[in-house]
Amino acid sequence: MKKTMLALAALPLLATTTPAHADDRLTGDALAAAADRALTDDTLAWDFVEGITTEVGPRQAGTEAEKRGRDWAVAWLRANGFANVADEPFQMETWVPGELHRAEIVSPFPQPLVIQPLGGSASTGPDGIVAEVVEFENVAALAAAPQGSLQGKIAYISHSMTPTQDGSQYGFAGPARWIGAGLAKSKGAIATVIKSVGTDYHRNPHVGGTTFRNPDGSSDVGRAVPTPAGALSLPDAANLERMFDRANGRPITMKLTLTPRNLGTTTSGNVVGEIVGRDPSLPPVLVACHIDSWWNAPGAFDDGAGCGIVAAAARNVGEAGQPLRTIRVLMAGAEEVGLFGSVAYSKAHIDEKIGVGLESDFGADRIWRFESNFRDTNPDLHARLAASIARFGVADSTIRASGGADINISRDQGGAIIDLQQDGTRYFDLHHTPDDTLDKIDPVQLRQNVAVWTQVVGILANEAEPIEGAPKID
Amino acid sequence: MKKTMLALAALPLLATTTPAHADDRLTGDALAAAADRALTDDTLAWDFVEGITTEVGPRQAGTEAEKRGRDWAVAWLRANGFANVADEPFQMETWVPGELHRAEIVSPFPQPLVIQPLGGSASTGPDGIVAEVVEFENVAALAAAPQGSLQGKIAYISHSMTPTQDGSQYGFAGPARWIGAGLAKSKGAIATVIKSVGTDYHRNPHVGGTTFRNPDGSSDVGRAVPTPAGALSLPDAANLERMFDRANGRPITMKLTLTPRNLGTTTSGNVVGEIVGRDPSLPPVLVACHIDSWWNAPGAFDDGAGCGIVAAAARNVGEAGQPLRTIRVLMAGAEEVGLFGSVAYSKAHIDEKIGVGLESDFGADRIWRFESNFRDTNPDLHARLAASIARFGVADSTIRASGGADINISRDQGGAIIDLQQDGTRYFDLHHTPDDTLDKIDPVQLRQNVAVWTQVVGILANEAEPIEGAPKID
Repeated sequence: MKKTMLALAALPLLATTTPAHADDRLTGDALAAAADRALTDDTLAWDFVEGITTEVGPRQAGTEAEKRGRDWAVAWLRANGFANVADEPFQMETWVPGELHRAEIVSPFPQPLVIQPLGGSASTGPDGIVAEVVEFENVAALAAAPQGSLQGKIAYISHSMTPTQDGSQYGFAGPARWIGAGLAKSKGAIATVIKSVGTDYHRNPHVGGTTFRNPDGSSDVGRAVPTPAGALSLPDAANLERMFDRANGRPITMKLTLTPRNLGTTTSGNVVGEIVGRDPSLPPVLVACHIDSWWNAPGAFDDGAGCGIVAAAARNVGEAGQPLRTIRVLMAGAEEVGLFGSVAYSKAHIDEKIGVGLESDFGADRIWRFESNFRDTNPDLHARLAASIARFGVADSTIRASGGADINISRDQGGAIIDLQQDGTRYFDLHHTPDDTLDKIDPVQLRQNVAVWTQVVGILANEAEPIEGAPKID
Repeated sequence: MKKTMLALAALPLLATTTPAHADDRLTGDALAAAADRALTDDTLAWDFVEGITTEVGPRQAGTEAEKRGRDWAVAWLRANGFANVADEPFQMETWVPGELHRAEIVSPFPQPLVIQPLGGSASTGPDGIVAEVVEFENVAALAAAPQGSLQGKIAYISHSMTPTQDGSQYGFAGPARWIGAGLAKSKGAIATVIKSVGTDYHRNPHVGGTTFRNPDGSSDVGRAVPTPAGALSLPDAANLERMFDRANGRPITMKLTLTPRNLGTTTSGNVVGEIVGRDPSLPPVLVACHIDSWWNAPGAFDDGAGCGIVAAAARNVGEAGQPLRTIRVLMAGAEEVGLFGSVAYSKAHIDEKIGVGLESDFGADRIWRFESNFRDTNPDLHARLAASIARFGVADSTIRASGGADINISRDQGGAIIDLQQDGTRYFDLHHTPDDTLDKIDPVQLRQNVAVWTQVVGILANEAEPIEGAPKID
């Protein structure tokens, strides 16, 4: 696919110049044709995600690998005709997973289980820790355990997740990962092991950050040392649960060895680039994704594809004709570990009004539903957008868009937001697991994303009237 | 499922005693009813495979884990009414995978790849080796490389495998693993990395043994030190191949760290047990599987399921009535690393004539085809068997059965062999990979296996006439 990038880079770079002629202006017909072409022919999104997963690979926030990812994206944006390309740095506290990730059942059924550390996990030290495992079916059961009852024990949370198209099970099962370890620690546990908050059945744990904050609102953040915390793959979790069934009351003892470490303060950054519009006085269209990935995969679904989609769509619009508004691409750094890039971007740019924000950060499967937060305030614009993408199989919706991790600035400004909902049925088979690799991307569905995004971003970028979000609901 | 075993263990153990009454004799009707019950109700095969994968887990040949597996199987056979249960020891040279399994691209695209060592691989030492990688599309291309041309290099073999129902692609793609490393070494390579000889797309390499024997017949076995050799998962292999495409001729340099080691001579063993027949003078029916697994998985498909199937079928026949011939279960040790158990069994028992041999060692998916090597010599028996299992969806076949790894004795004696071919379409998604876990077994298909085996083994065990294989074809 590398030929694509070179071929496109050799085309006249219409979007970076301010055309002197009305002929260069983006028209509705040219835009629709560009979106239709993307559906069948787009190779630019694939080129991005193939390139970054192959030439960079995993790019954990705050590390030199993320820096290589940002450098790669800067070069790619420039080679593909984006203007005002930059890497805007910010500082962060950086955690890395270390080398040893082991969970071994010591008794009564000795065998290794596949585990990976959760982001923020403490180290057990290279010699590991040995303790009895106590099982809880979910966070509520753990919360009900008496204070001190887990003294010296390893808590295990077995909450299962099922796939859903809208990904809503993540909110249901996610607390096991997000707060389980902190909660277990508050009961005396010396470590926490969870069933992966994922839906695949391969020996690839689903990782992600955990926090040592309690569900009652009290927080350990900033004052307490975390405990070791890891996720078992689903087959390993099922095995552990069968061990409880077969142990006849005998204790299950585990040796846990996780050696993450903190690097202290390092630099991350947000990569930005623009397709410059005809009227710089109009607030831009912000299209966002994130450039970092977890350490255990090259981040194809999460979020190489998203960056490829938003960049390809912006580029397609610029190729079709110069839009009225500028389209700004934001590839946020350090999303996975706490939305640090998105927060830093909002802080740095809060006084620069955004017209409307959209992000792509839910994989590469097809877009099935359109949502905005201006259905009531700008019904004509909402309706026009929804109608424009019906031909790509995208349903309209009355659900109020709330945006994702990478567009904090739009929420902070109380601005307009669009969600182009992707099919999440298999997202949690891949998200945050080693299996988030390029081969999982369906090129046909990826192109549908680019087509929908091209159409929507083009209409928004050509919108002369104000675009306003509904009043922020807190 | 543990209740099943306890409940069955409490039943009268008909099969271990020699009934005084003709009423206890196995009849065709009782056998057919037992096979039909197995199709809908069998839980014994599941109990075996759940038990050994949960309570023992991975059981690499010659290690203490395999010993625990044999002990577990001995206890299980006794608890389920088998007679003459024993663990027949033999000595072997034992290789273990060690702790460090890493492949990192050093340049031009630094990132880690997922790798596991092939059985027999040498160690790189804990500090690893760094060398340029040279790609070959298959063993034939590697064989064509000039002598000495790989001096100081790492050979990479990219031969791909596709799924087939009969598993025949394994013979086509397998040589990359079986002889690739030895061949590369003969050209000067200091290590070999292969694309996994498997068909899944998860980050779980497909391992298995390699030999340092050259395809021209010359052999390094016993006189040469092996080189390090490992298998990349398919997504990682695809990534490496994209790197070659994108490197524009720049060398791809890899740091490879594999630390297997040899334990020297250790003890393995063959687990045997019997359903005793009415006439000890008739050669027994041998039903075989293997008890060991690779180190990287609990061996559910390969071959916990097979042992569960053959043992459940033997037990079902015994429960239905005492057969004429003894049914002998052989759970061979050390199959994966060179069929050592099957060879040892044949050597120890070569003078004890086997009536007919069958093995189950191709997963847990449904049986689709019946083969024997006595279609021409015993057409009536072949036809009766084929007809008896047509109701389970098993087709007859003119293919001559050749038997599998665990029934060397039948081949060595030139005896009768039956192959109950299982559907192998997804076998190489799991076989020899970390993903060979219990959750992959479909209980419905497992029960179909038990039903077919019950029917076939029961007819064979009640056969009064001689059962003869066709003359051995060499």
